[in-house]
Amino acid sequence: MKIAVLGGTGNLGIGLSLRLAILGYDVIVGSRSEEKAKAKAEEYLKILSDHGYTGKIVGAVNAEASKQCDLAVITVPYEQAFTLAESLKNELAGKIVVSPLVPMKKEGKLFRYVELPEGSAGEKIAGILKDSRVVSAYHNIPADRFAELDSKFEWDVLVCSDDPEAKKAIIEITNEIKGLRALDCGDLKSSRMVESLTVLILNVMIANKLKELGVKFC
Amino acid sequence: MKIAVLGGTGNLGIGLSLRLAILGYDVIVGSRSEEKAKAKAEEYLKILSDHGYTGKIVGAVNAEASKQCDLAVITVPYEQAFTLAESLKNELAGKIVVSPLVPMKKEGKLFRYVELPEGSAGEKIAGILKDSRVVSAYHNIPADRFAELDSKFEWDVLVCSDDPEAKKAIIEITNEIKGLRALDCGDLKSSRMVESLTVLILNVMIANKLKELGVKFC
Repeated sequence: MKIAVLGGTGNLGIGLSLRLAILGYDVIVGSRSEEKAKAKAEEYLKILSDHGYTGKIVGAVNAEASKQCDLAVITVPYEQAFTLAESLKNELAGKIVVSPLVPMKKEGKLFRYVELPEGSAGEKIAGILKDSRVVSAYHNIPADRFAELDSKFEWDVLVCSDDPEAKKAIIEITNEIKGLRALDCGDLKSSRMVESLTVLILNVMIANKLKELGVKFC
Repeated sequence: MKIAVLGGTGNLGIGLSLRLAILGYDVIVGSRSEEKAKAKAEEYLKILSDHGYTGKIVGAVNAEASKQCDLAVITVPYEQAFTLAESLKNELAGKIVVSPLVPMKKEGKLFRYVELPEGSAGEKIAGILKDSRVVSAYHNIPADRFAELDSKFEWDVLVCSDDPEAKKAIIEITNEIKGLRALDCGDLKSSRMVESLTVLILNVMIANKLKELGVKFC
């Protein structure tokens, strides 16, 4: 299965690309610049081999990555994500598209969730990509620790979608990643709660001087 | 310190009453009926002694409990809580009042967070109890496991308030309870995220056939 990590040169993109490649998935790192995408793919392959892994990671511009993939994850910041999705409608038609997007802004020392008329970023993406199978997931993963292949963690990944089969596919792929447990949390209407949990975790980290926390239901 | 657990005959009320009494706090179980409150207080004292603990727990009607206490926790269901708070304004003036309230309703198999014009139950309680020092906390504790003195857990309690000193007091008391870690998560505006996390946990339990989960940031 070919997985495109759109905006895969950012923090969450690194961890996902590396860990999916280790599992044997064909990873396409997407970026606005082909040159940057290819350079990042090389860099990720080097990290894999430094850790004794092999894997397939290539780089491509986002449109090409979207065309070639079976499944895409949009890991660009949310302000850019909706325009990007709009521009990739055709390439992503019929495919599973994962939104880890969290609309938020800083207000004083803390973050606030940004209310969207659609209810959540996941629902907004689903409204734009009407012909794709949108799944909301991977919001609550601390990107730096996730990118670090030696790090140890036990985190839950909350997965919502209005497409039960697409949701099941993402739950299965996620459960293959060591240290992650995927939990079904219903339809896309629930995405707002999952997205705002990220804001809550960020504020908890800031207010309690803690770093890079994920979430576990226990 | 005298702590009133208003509606302390319900599930969260049991666990809080028992565990606060064990720590040496004077607990007043509040209820609409004096008879029921006194019977519950007796029952809780029996549970304590059966587990080899001693403690002070008495029962009183909610108004009397509110008058006598230094600090109150409102553990009635949210639909009744606002009317109760309205009726106890004078008794609770100047005191710390904790809201673990979560406005929610069932929609099909899952729960939905009920939007309130005030933003959250915590903010609504603060609007009603203008002369009290409102703190939002204890939303995400699975009541049955918490009530069971033999149960083992490691949960985080998310605490928000616009009153820094009151928030600090609740964080300190909470950290005294074995298995709980209190985390500051900002002002009352953040209460909505903490409250809706409960809805998310409930939905996760329903959709994944899991039971009585708390939350841990790790």
